[in-house]
Amino acid sequence: MSDLMKGFIWHKDGSTSFLKKEIPVIKDDKDAIIKVKMSSICTSDLHIISGFVPKAVPGTILGHEFTGEVAEVGKSVKNFKKGDRVSVNVETFCGECFFCRRGFVNNCEKGGWKIGCTIDGCQAEYVRVPYADNGLTKLPDNVSYEDALFVGDILSSGYWGAELCQIKAGDVVAVIGAGPVGLCAMMSAKLLGASKVIAIDVDDKRLGIAKKENIADVFLNPDKINLEEEIKQYTKGRGADSVIEAAGGENTFELAYKIARPNAIVAIVAMYEKNQILPLPEMYGKNLIFKTGGVDANHCKELVQLISDGKISTNFLITHKFPFEYIKDAYDVFKKKTDDCLKVAITYK
Amino acid sequence: MSDLMKGFIWHKDGSTSFLKKEIPVIKDDKDAIIKVKMSSICTSDLHIISGFVPKAVPGTILGHEFTGEVAEVGKSVKNFKKGDRVSVNVETFCGECFFCRRGFVNNCEKGGWKIGCTIDGCQAEYVRVPYADNGLTKLPDNVSYEDALFVGDILSSGYWGAELCQIKAGDVVAVIGAGPVGLCAMMSAKLLGASKVIAIDVDDKRLGIAKKENIADVFLNPDKINLEEEIKQYTKGRGADSVIEAAGGENTFELAYKIARPNAIVAIVAMYEKNQILPLPEMYGKNLIFKTGGVDANHCKELVQLISDGKISTNFLITHKFPFEYIKDAYDVFKKKTDDCLKVAITYK
Repeated sequence: MSDLMKGFIWHKDGSTSFLKKEIPVIKDDKDAIIKVKMSSICTSDLHIISGFVPKAVPGTILGHEFTGEVAEVGKSVKNFKKGDRVSVNVETFCGECFFCRRGFVNNCEKGGWKIGCTIDGCQAEYVRVPYADNGLTKLPDNVSYEDALFVGDILSSGYWGAELCQIKAGDVVAVIGAGPVGLCAMMSAKLLGASKVIAIDVDDKRLGIAKKENIADVFLNPDKINLEEEIKQYTKGRGADSVIEAAGGENTFELAYKIARPNAIVAIVAMYEKNQILPLPEMYGKNLIFKTGGVDANHCKELVQLISDGKISTNFLITHKFPFEYIKDAYDVFKKKTDDCLKVAITYK
Repeated sequence: MSDLMKGFIWHKDGSTSFLKKEIPVIKDDKDAIIKVKMSSICTSDLHIISGFVPKAVPGTILGHEFTGEVAEVGKSVKNFKKGDRVSVNVETFCGECFFCRRGFVNNCEKGGWKIGCTIDGCQAEYVRVPYADNGLTKLPDNVSYEDALFVGDILSSGYWGAELCQIKAGDVVAVIGAGPVGLCAMMSAKLLGASKVIAIDVDDKRLGIAKKENIADVFLNPDKINLEEEIKQYTKGRGADSVIEAAGGENTFELAYKIARPNAIVAIVAMYEKNQILPLPEMYGKNLIFKTGGVDANHCKELVQLISDGKISTNFLITHKFPFEYIKDAYDVFKKKTDDCLKVAITYK
């Protein structure tokens, strides 16, 4: 009989519960089993529980943001061994298919977002990670489990949003939404050469964090100003050179294309619950480029290196910590943004 | 007193008429005056007359597709002289501003689409062309006025649509709409390395032209088949590597993103009369890129060279010819697509 572990599971009716499940074992030679050392809760977990992620499988252990220690590897795993400290990629990808060969790992023909969605996730004591050589990133000694907690998902997402913008030296980049992904996008935009990063949020407290952490240059609350006009003041009347939409709010899609200058890239990183209107007749000639979709998390190694080199840090995002046993409370705090919660870290014995 | 010429003008009430107007004169040192040798009618002219182009000025001479002979140049014009045979760019651009320096000539701070829209156009005997050094392209001896008639607008538009797709060797490119711009997009896609060009139209006669002219490889009528499934047969089940939407029809925007594979570019070249729905929740993770807008016609020199070299030809698009005096009849035939009209050529004495 296999050993049992605790896993945090969601059900079709929108409820969640702890269950005892068997500790996962190697199913494929390319698998690794990871002992979870730190995990987090993502807005996507809330989307799953609310039924907004069609492919998510009820009864599955939630969670896809985590770091841990390699407990076991399959025969074909070349780059990792038991005891290695790793961050784990939200995406499972084979590295060999049509899409992987182009860097489009989110659309891997054999993978995509699986962990915590279609297979058991990291809100548990152990996780099975398929294609471990692609999905794991080794942590240098000076990078803690906490330092690297967000590498595989939200930092990758923010970086990806900035990467989509093809930022050129001197560009003014506007980021809508100063939540965790938006904040990561802001720091990435700066890293990639933006001369000015404009943080936009209706929540002044969140703007305050972007200011305190010095990851943006201008802080604008669209509830209090005419955003379109204000942005023009920072862009010689043209509008933002690129826009990252990381809010997914009621009117944030519209704001995104309105504050963009002609020929700008509008990177849609947010997950929407509603269809959006694309007013093509009105925007004819503005020549905007809309890039949509989910993160291609294919720069985890570089992101870990940047953390190790002290160039970026996401530790400030962790506003709350909960032992795994109290994860229900963690969900509650994260969902309600109690005490200005940005991200919770789930700790393990 | 200046000499008079005939010009074909539109009025606010949607009517058109011939008027006598003064032959244009140099207003700026960078202007040239062109004696029109051949012109055409564009769907955009119909859009103007119907009131769908907000910036168009009633009482203006229509038309922006033409070739002609340089009659006079301003003092600062360096590259052209009286008697030069030229094709003329639909777009007026300074070549020096923020947008021009990036190749975004459609959004030139001093120009954009002016001729036949905000200033007098080419459905006249003479036209004033601002920024002549940028707007004119010299025709080699082996390129006739007819050969180059579409360089400055619809060929540029089709080429631009294909260019937006960043075609890679072996790509399968689907083009929706086998009208003039769509046909130009098809030949451009092939020129840029597509292994397979799929022509899509609900009009079998138009598909027949694409077939007869050998500018596409597969010919599909979405009224007769399940387009999404059919396209998969040519793309190993993935969908088209890129899609050029050159139809602007009732449901062609939807078709465009449905037949695209994940991570495809969807180039929206068509002009729409209605807003479109972007179903972001449903397409989450498909990572499509939508490129919108109006042509950046900045490859006219290269297109003329390709015509001169015999690599491309647009002469087959001219299905009808009318002397300038009969331009009202030409509009009628073009609008109603009488005798399967694709494009009309307007000839001058």
